[in-house]
Amino acid sequence: MLEFLKQRSEKASLPPGSAVYVGKERAHVVEVRILDYNREKCNDSSDLELAEVQPLADSPSTTWLNVDGLHEVSIVEQIGKMFALHPLTIEDIVNTTQRPKIDIFDDYVYLVVKMPLYNDELNTVEMEQVSLVLKENILITFQERKSSVFDGVRKRVSNNKGRIRKMGGDYLAYALLDAIVDSYFNVLERVGEYIETLEVELVDNPIPTTLHKIHGLKREMILLRKSVWPLREVTSSLQRDEIPFISEGASPFLKDLYDHVIQVLDTVETFRDIVSGMLDIYLSSMSNKMNEVMKVLTIFAALFIPLTFIAGIYGMNFNSEKSPYNMPELDWIYGYPFALGIMVAVAFAMLFYFKKKKWF
Amino acid sequence: MLEFLKQRSEKASLPPGSAVYVGKERAHVVEVRILDYNREKCNDSSDLELAEVQPLADSPSTTWLNVDGLHEVSIVEQIGKMFALHPLTIEDIVNTTQRPKIDIFDDYVYLVVKMPLYNDELNTVEMEQVSLVLKENILITFQERKSSVFDGVRKRVSNNKGRIRKMGGDYLAYALLDAIVDSYFNVLERVGEYIETLEVELVDNPIPTTLHKIHGLKREMILLRKSVWPLREVTSSLQRDEIPFISEGASPFLKDLYDHVIQVLDTVETFRDIVSGMLDIYLSSMSNKMNEVMKVLTIFAALFIPLTFIAGIYGMNFNSEKSPYNMPELDWIYGYPFALGIMVAVAFAMLFYFKKKKWF
Amino acid sequence: MLEFLKQRSEKASLPPGSAVYVGKERAHVVEVRILDYNREKCNDSSDLELAEVQPLADSPSTTWLNVDGLHEVSIVEQIGKMFALHPLTIEDIVNTTQRPKIDIFDDYVYLVVKMPLYNDELNTVEMEQVSLVLKENILITFQERKSSVFDGVRKRVSNNKGRIRKMGGDYLAYALLDAIVDSYFNVLERVGEYIETLEVELVDNPIPTTLHKIHGLKREMILLRKSVWPLREVTSSLQRDEIPFISEGASPFLKDLYDHVIQVLDTVETFRDIVSGMLDIYLSSMSNKMNEVMKVLTIFAALFIPLTFIAGIYGMNFNSEKSPYNMPELDWIYGYPFALGIMVAVAFAMLFYFKKKKWF
Amino acid sequence: MLEFLKQRSEKASLPPGSAVYVGKERAHVVEVRILDYNREKCNDSSDLELAEVQPLADSPSTTWLNVDGLHEVSIVEQIGKMFALHPLTIEDIVNTTQRPKIDIFDDYVYLVVKMPLYNDELNTVEMEQVSLVLKENILITFQERKSSVFDGVRKRVSNNKGRIRKMGGDYLAYALLDAIVDSYFNVLERVGEYIETLEVELVDNPIPTTLHKIHGLKREMILLRKSVWPLREVTSSLQRDEIPFISEGASPFLKDLYDHVIQVLDTVETFRDIVSGMLDIYLSSMSNKMNEVMKVLTIFAALFIPLTFIAGIYGMNFNSEKSPYNMPELDWIYGYPFALGIMVAVAFAMLFYFKKKKWF
Amino acid sequence: MLEFLKQRSEKASLPPGSAVYVGKERAHVVEVRILDYNREKCNDSSDLELAEVQPLADSPSTTWLNVDGLHEVSIVEQIGKMFALHPLTIEDIVNTTQRPKIDIFDDYVYLVVKMPLYNDELNTVEMEQVSLVLKENILITFQERKSSVFDGVRKRVSNNKGRIRKMGGDYLAYALLDAIVDSYFNVLERVGEYIETLEVELVDNPIPTTLHKIHGLKREMILLRKSVWPLREVTSSLQRDEIPFISEGASPFLKDLYDHVIQVLDTVETFRDIVSGMLDIYLSSMSNKMNEVMKVLTIFAALFIPLTFIAGIYGMNFNSEKSPYNMPELDWIYGYPFALGIMVAVAFAMLFYFKKKKWF
Repeated sequence: MLEFLKQRSEKASLPPGSAVYVGKERAHVVEVRILDYNREKCNDSSDLELAEVQPLADSPSTTWLNVDGLHEVSIVEQIGKMFALHPLTIEDIVNTTQRPKIDIFDDYVYLVVKMPLYNDELNTVEMEQVSLVLKENILITFQERKSSVFDGVRKRVSNNKGRIRKMGGDYLAYALLDAIVDSYFNVLERVGEYIETLEVELVDNPIPTTLHKIHGLKREMILLRKSVWPLREVTSSLQRDEIPFISEGASPFLKDLYDHVIQVLDTVETFRDIVSGMLDIYLSSMSNKMNEVMKVLTIFAALFIPLTFIAGIYGMNFNSEKSPYNMPELDWIYGYPFALGIMVAVAFAMLFYFKKKKWF
Repeated sequence: MLEFLKQRSEKASLPPGSAVYVGKERAHVVEVRILDYNREKCNDSSDLELAEVQPLADSPSTTWLNVDGLHEVSIVEQIGKMFALHPLTIEDIVNTTQRPKIDIFDDYVYLVVKMPLYNDELNTVEMEQVSLVLKENILITFQERKSSVFDGVRKRVSNNKGRIRKMGGDYLAYALLDAIVDSYFNVLERVGEYIETLEVELVDNPIPTTLHKIHGLKREMILLRKSVWPLREVTSSLQRDEIPFISEGASPFLKDLYDHVIQVLDTVETFRDIVSGMLDIYLSSMSNKMNEVMKVLTIFAALFIPLTFIAGIYGMNFNSEKSPYNMPELDWIYGYPFALGIMVAVAFAMLFYFKKKKWF
Repeated sequence: MLEFLKQRSEKASLPPGSAVYVGKERAHVVEVRILDYNREKCNDSSDLELAEVQPLADSPSTTWLNVDGLHEVSIVEQIGKMFALHPLTIEDIVNTTQRPKIDIFDDYVYLVVKMPLYNDELNTVEMEQVSLVLKENILITFQERKSSVFDGVRKRVSNNKGRIRKMGGDYLAYALLDAIVDSYFNVLERVGEYIETLEVELVDNPIPTTLHKIHGLKREMILLRKSVWPLREVTSSLQRDEIPFISEGASPFLKDLYDHVIQVLDTVETFRDIVSGMLDIYLSSMSNKMNEVMKVLTIFAALFIPLTFIAGIYGMNFNSEKSPYNMPELDWIYGYPFALGIMVAVAFAMLFYFKKKKWF
Repeated sequence: MLEFLKQRSEKASLPPGSAVYVGKERAHVVEVRILDYNREKCNDSSDLELAEVQPLADSPSTTWLNVDGLHEVSIVEQIGKMFALHPLTIEDIVNTTQRPKIDIFDDYVYLVVKMPLYNDELNTVEMEQVSLVLKENILITFQERKSSVFDGVRKRVSNNKGRIRKMGGDYLAYALLDAIVDSYFNVLERVGEYIETLEVELVDNPIPTTLHKIHGLKREMILLRKSVWPLREVTSSLQRDEIPFISEGASPFLKDLYDHVIQVLDTVETFRDIVSGMLDIYLSSMSNKMNEVMKVLTIFAALFIPLTFIAGIYGMNFNSEKSPYNMPELDWIYGYPFALGIMVAVAFAMLFYFKKKKWF
Repeated sequence: MLEFLKQRSEKASLPPGSAVYVGKERAHVVEVRILDYNREKCNDSSDLELAEVQPLADSPSTTWLNVDGLHEVSIVEQIGKMFALHPLTIEDIVNTTQRPKIDIFDDYVYLVVKMPLYNDELNTVEMEQVSLVLKENILITFQERKSSVFDGVRKRVSNNKGRIRKMGGDYLAYALLDAIVDSYFNVLERVGEYIETLEVELVDNPIPTTLHKIHGLKREMILLRKSVWPLREVTSSLQRDEIPFISEGASPFLKDLYDHVIQVLDTVETFRDIVSGMLDIYLSSMSNKMNEVMKVLTIFAALFIPLTFIAGIYGMNFNSEKSPYNMPELDWIYGYPFALGIMVAVAFAMLFYFKKKKWF
C-alpha cells in the first residue's frame, strides 16, 4: 500500500504528462512482440524493429503489438509517438499505480486494468497493470512483465481456433480482457482454498496468529475489491457506451465480459462476508476459552476453599485441657474420620452443584 | 463456494463461446420432453427425435421443449444450432455457475435463473440452474436434472386448467418462472423452521455448536441473497423493458412475478436481520454465563477466605506460657465457641452483603 | 414470520390467479356495507344484496363498498366479477401476505396496504391487510375483519363534516389511507411507551429478560419497517404518477399523506437507532457488573491472602527449643500483639492502595 | 420523542385539514408584527389590526408579517383565510410536529423548517418550528414563540444595511432561512464544547455516567440529523426548482444557503462519528480497567499462594520423634531462617516473572 | 473541529455577503504576486500595485494573480471589486471554513478547495483553503499563507517547461489543482508511514496509548475524507459540465485530474478500513492478554490450592493419643515423605491436565 504512495508522491512535483516509470524495480529486457493476422494468414514475430510496425498497422489486417515491460520508458514513448497517443496516455501507461479506467479519445480508446497474481508464500494477491490501446486495425498492449495470461489467446490466433481470426481488433481486445477476468477466477480459487485452510485452523486450534491471518485476508479482500470495482465500470462502459472501433457484433461478448466481472465482484463480496464471519467466530471462541479457564478456576477454588477452611478449624490451638468447650472433637475417638467425612461430603455437594449447573 | 470457483477456473483457458459443461458430475440419461399445445389440442411426448421438433416449432401452436440434464453438451449444442442460438448462449446454458441474468437477442430472449433446493440433512440451500430460451412460438427450458417444480405447470397445460392454453409462450415462461419463485417460498419456509429450532436451542442451552450453526445459517442467507438479488433485476427487466415475444397481456402477470421476487428478497433480508440478532443474543448469553461463574467464584472466595484467616490466627503457635499477651484466647473457657461464633457472624455478614448486591 | 411462509408456500402449487384465502383462520360472518353519497344525500346500508350494488355504482353519486372479512372467497370473487377486476387482483385481495403495492389498470386502481394493531399483552405489532379498489364513482375496500379505523371517515361522510361529501371517490380513498397512516402513529405511540418502560428497566435493574425484550423490540421494528417502506412507494406513486380517477384537486392531500408516511418511517428509523443504543447500554452495563464482581473478589483476596500467609508463618512448628533461630517470636512477650499489629498494618496498606486506585 | 407521538396520535381521529394546535403548552399572548418596506421607507408596527394588513400586502412594497405563537389557532386561521391559504397549509402551520418540507402552490410557497435551541442544563437540543409563506409582495412567518434569531434580519431591514431593502420578499425569506441555518452553527458549537468536556471526562475518569452521557449525545445527534436532512432537501429544491416568486437574482444566495446546510449536515455526521469513537474508547477503557483488576488479583494470588503453601507444610504435625524422616527440618538449627529464605526466593522469582511479562 | 464552529458561529449574526476573515490568526504581510505570460514572454513580479493589474488582465496574455494571505480583507475586497466578483464569492474567499465547491457565474468560475499539510509532531493533517477565480485571460488564486505547493507550476511557467505556456488560464488552473491533488498523495504517504509505525507498535506492545493513537488516526481519516469527497464533486463538475473559459483541449487533463482525486479517495477509504482493522486487532489482543492473565491465575490457584489443603489436613490437631483413628499417619515412619509424595503427584497431575488443555 505504502509503496504505491511513495512512488506516486515522488512523481508529484513533475508536470502533468511526464512519462516517468512508476512501479516495482524491474531489470529484464523489454520484449516487443507483433502478431499480424487476418482470416487467411498470421505472422508472429518478436524481432521486428519498431519502425517496421507502422506499415503493418496501416494495412487492413489486424495487428497486435504487445510490450512486456514498462521500465524502459523510451520504448513506450516511441510507440506513443508513432501512434499519436496523448501525452497523458503515455504517462498513464508507465505509471503502474493507475486505477482501472477507460479513456475514449477521438482516434483511439485507452483501457487500463489490473491483472491479479497469487503469491503462494505470503498468501497475498499482487496486482500488475495491463494497458490496452485500441485503434483502427491495431491493438497495443502493455504489461509490466511477461506473463502467461495472454498465451491462450495468442495460441488461438496462431492456430485459428474459434472465431478470433475472423474478427477485428475489438474482438482481440475483448479476448484479452476475458483472459484477465478469468485470471481473477483463478486467483479467487486460490484465495478460497486459503480460506478453507484457515477455517479448519479456526475450528481446530484458534491462536492469535490465526487472527492475524484472518485480518491479512480481510485486507487482501479490500485491495482486490479496489481493483475489481472500477473494472466493473470499465466493462460496463465498453458494453453500454458507443465506442469507436468497437463493432456491433462484439456487443454480446462485451455483455458476457461484464457479467463475468459482476460474478468476480460477487465472489469478492461473499468472501468479505465470510471473512467477517470468521473474525466473529474467532472472537467468540476466544471468549469461550476464557469461560473454560474461569470455570476450571472456579471449580477448583470453590471445591478446596471450604475444605481448607475445615482443616484450618481443626488446626487451631484452643486449649482443650482448660475447658471442655475448647475443641472437644480433637479428643473424640472418631474425630479425625468424622472431619474427613465432612470434607468428602462437602466436596460431593460442590461437585453435584456444578454438575447441575452444567459446568462440566 | 470453492467448488464453483474450481469448476469456473478450469474453464479459464478456453476461448469464449466454448460449450463445456461446468457443474456437478451427473450421469443420468438426458431427457428431452416436448409439449405442443394450442387452445384445442395438447401433445406431450418424450420420445421424439430432435429432428422432429423443427416442424412443431415452426407451426403456430406453442411448443415447450424441456431438457433435463446439461452434462451431455452435444444435445444442447444440437438444439442451439437448430434454433440459431448465439454461441455465448449455448456456453451459458451448460455453465451452471451463471449469475441470474437476461440476454435479449434480436430473435430470442435468454433467461437464466437459480432454483433452490433445501438439503434437510445439512440444513443448507442448494442451487440448480434453469435456463429459458423464448422464441416465437417456442419456449426451450434447460434444467440440471429432473425436478418436480415444473410438474404443476405441465399438468395445468395437459388438463387445460386456468388460462395457460389460451395464451402463448410468454405466458408459459411466466408460469415456469412463477413456479421457480414459489419454490423459493418453500425453501424459505424450511429455513424459517430451522431458525425457530435454533432459537429454542439458543434460549434453552446455548453451546459453541449453536454458534457454528448460526454462522452457517448466516452464510446460507448470504448465498441465497446472491441468487435472489439478480433475479430481481431479471424480473424487473421482463416487466419494464419492451422485450420481443412478450405480449401486452402478460404485463400484469410479470408485475405480479416481480412483486413476489421482492417479497422473497424482503424475507431473506428479514432472516438476515434475525440471524444477526441471534448472534448478538448468543454472545451476550455467553458473557452472562461468565458473569454467573464469576459470581459463584467471588461468593465462595469472599465467604471462606476471611473464615480461613480467623482459623489461621488461632492456629498460630505463640507461646502463651511465656507471656500473658500471647493468645490468651486459647485458654479461655469459651474460646472455641467464641471463635466459631465470630466465623458464623462474618459468614452471615458476607451473605447479607451479597444479598443486598442482588448476587443471588 | 414463519406463519406467513407456511401459508404462502401451501399456495405454491396453484396456478397464478387462483383466488385462495391465505391468512389467519377467521370464522365471523363477512359483512358488506355500502355507503352511497353525494353533496345532498347519503345512504348507509349493510343489508343490501350484492346485485343491488351495481345500479349504485353506475350512478354518478360516490359509492363506498366495504367488505369486512376475506375468508369467504366467493363474496370477493362475486364482487370482482361484478366490477371486472383482473384475476390477479382478486388473488391478491384474499392473499393477506401481500407486500403493500399499487397496481394501475386501465379501468381501476388497486392498492394494498398494511394496517397495524398493537398487541398489549405481547407488546408486538400485528398487521392486517387492507385492499382498496378505486373505479369511477366507486371505491371498494376489503379488510380482514371489522375494525374501528374507518369509523371516523364513515361518520364524517354521514354527518357531512369537512369537505368529504363535496369530493369524489379519490378523496374518500385518501381519507381512508390517511386514517390508516394515523393508526401507525397510534401504534408508534404505544411502542414509544414500551421503549420508555424498557429504558427505566434498563437503568434500574437490567436482567437477561431485559435483553430478550430489547431484541424482541428490535425485531418488531424490522417488521414494522418492512410494512412502511413499501407504503412510502405506494403513496409516492399516488402523488407523483398520473393515475386515472385521481383528480388534480386531490394532489395537495396526497402530498400531505406522503409527508405523513415519511414521518412514520422517520420515527421507525429513530426507534431502531434508540433500540440499538439500548442494546449497547445493556451490554456495557453487564460488563460493568462483571467489573464490580471482579473488584470485590480482588479486594477480598488481596486483603486476606497476605494476612493468612502471616498467620500461616506463625503456625509453623519449627522447634524453638532446638535452636535460638527457630521462631523466637513465638516466645516473645509481645509476640502475638506484634503479629496482629503487622496484620492490621498490612490490611490498612491494602485498603489505602485500593482507595487510591478508586476501587471503592 | 414520545411527546411528539402523543400529540400526533391525539389528532389522529380528526379529518384532514383540521387546524388544531399540536405542540408544547404555551400561554403567552400571540404577537403579530408587521414590517412593510421598500427602497425608500420602512414601517415597523406590532399593534396593527389584522384587517389593516390586507392593503399593505396588496401594495407593491414588501410586507413581512411575523406571528410569534401558534397556540391561538384562530389568529392563524384568520391570516390563512385573508391570504387564501390551503386548509392543509393552515393545519401544518399549527402542527409543530412537521418534518421540514416545501409545498409549492400556484399562488404561494409554503416552507416549514426547524430552528434549534440548545438547552444548557440538560445538554440537549430542542427544536422549534418555523413556517414561512411566500406570496407576491408578502412574506408571512410563524414561530412557536418569540425568539431572537430573526432580530438581526429585522435590524438590517430597519437600518437599511446591506442589500435587503433593495430586494423583494424572496430575499427576505432567504435572509431568515440563513439566520436559522446560522443558529444551527451556534447550536453545533455548543454541542462541540460539550463533546470536548466529555472527552476530557472520558480520558480522566470514565464512569458509567459518562457512558450514559455519550449515549444521550448520540441520541441528540440522531434527532438533529433528522431535522437537518430534510432541510437539505428543502434548500436544494429552493435552489434547483423553478419556484414562483423567487427571482433569478436570489439564485447565488440560495446556492450559498444550500452549501451552508450541507456544512451543517457534514458537521452533524462528523460529530456522530466522533461520538461513536468515544463509545469505543469508553468500552475499551472499561475492559482495560478490568484487565488491571485481574492483574492485581493474579499477582497477589500467585505471589502468596505458594508462600502460604510452604508455611502450611511446616505447620503439619508429623511426629518427628517417631521417625527421623518426619519433618527433620523442624529440628534443624537454621530450619526457620531456611524456610523464610525459600519464601523470599519464591517471592522474588514470581516478581521477576511478572516483571518480564510486563505486568507492572 | 470546534475551532471552525467557533469562528463560524461568531459570524452568524452578520448579513450574507459580509466579507469577514474567518480563520486562524495570521500576522504576515499579504503578498500579491503576478505572473503574466504567453507563448513568447513571461513576466513575474511581486511588487506591482493592484491598479497596474487591470491592463494585464485585459491583455490577451494569460495573467496569474496569486494572493498569499486572506487576513487583510481589504486587499481581497479591492481585487473583488476590480474583477466584479459577486459579494458572496468575496465572503467565501475570506471564510476559510468553506467546504470545497464550484460556483459558476456568468463571467467567471469560482472554485474553493482544501490543501492538506501534514503536522509531523501531532501526526495530524491540517487543511488550508485555496480559492481559484477563473475569468477570461486571468486566473486569481487566494491562499491562507505562502506555501511551496505552487512553486513547481510557477517554475514550469518561468522556464517554459511542458505545454503550460502554450495554453490558457484553464490549463493553469488545472495545473494548480493537479499540484494540490498531488499534495494529498504526499500527505497520504506520511499517513501511511504513521500507520506502519502504529502497526509495529500494535504487534509488539499494544498499550492504551496505542488505542488513543489509532482513534486519533481514525478521526484524521474522517476529516480528510470530508475534504476529498466534495473535491470529487468539484473535479467531476469541471470535467462534465460545460463551463465557460474551459476549452475543449483541457478535457483529457480534467478527466485525469478527476481520476487522481478518485485515487486519493480510494486510498483514504482503504486507510479507514485498515484503521478499523487495527482497532479490532487492538481489542482482541487486549482480550488475549486478559486470557493470559487468567490462565496464570488459574494455573497457580489450581496447582497450589489442593496442595495447601493437604498440608492443612496434616496441620490438624486431632489427638492421636486418645484414639488409634486420630491421624495415625502422623506417627508413621514414612508419614512425612508420604505426604510430600502425594503433593508432588497431585502437582504433576495438574500440570499434565493443563498441558493437555494447551494452556502453556
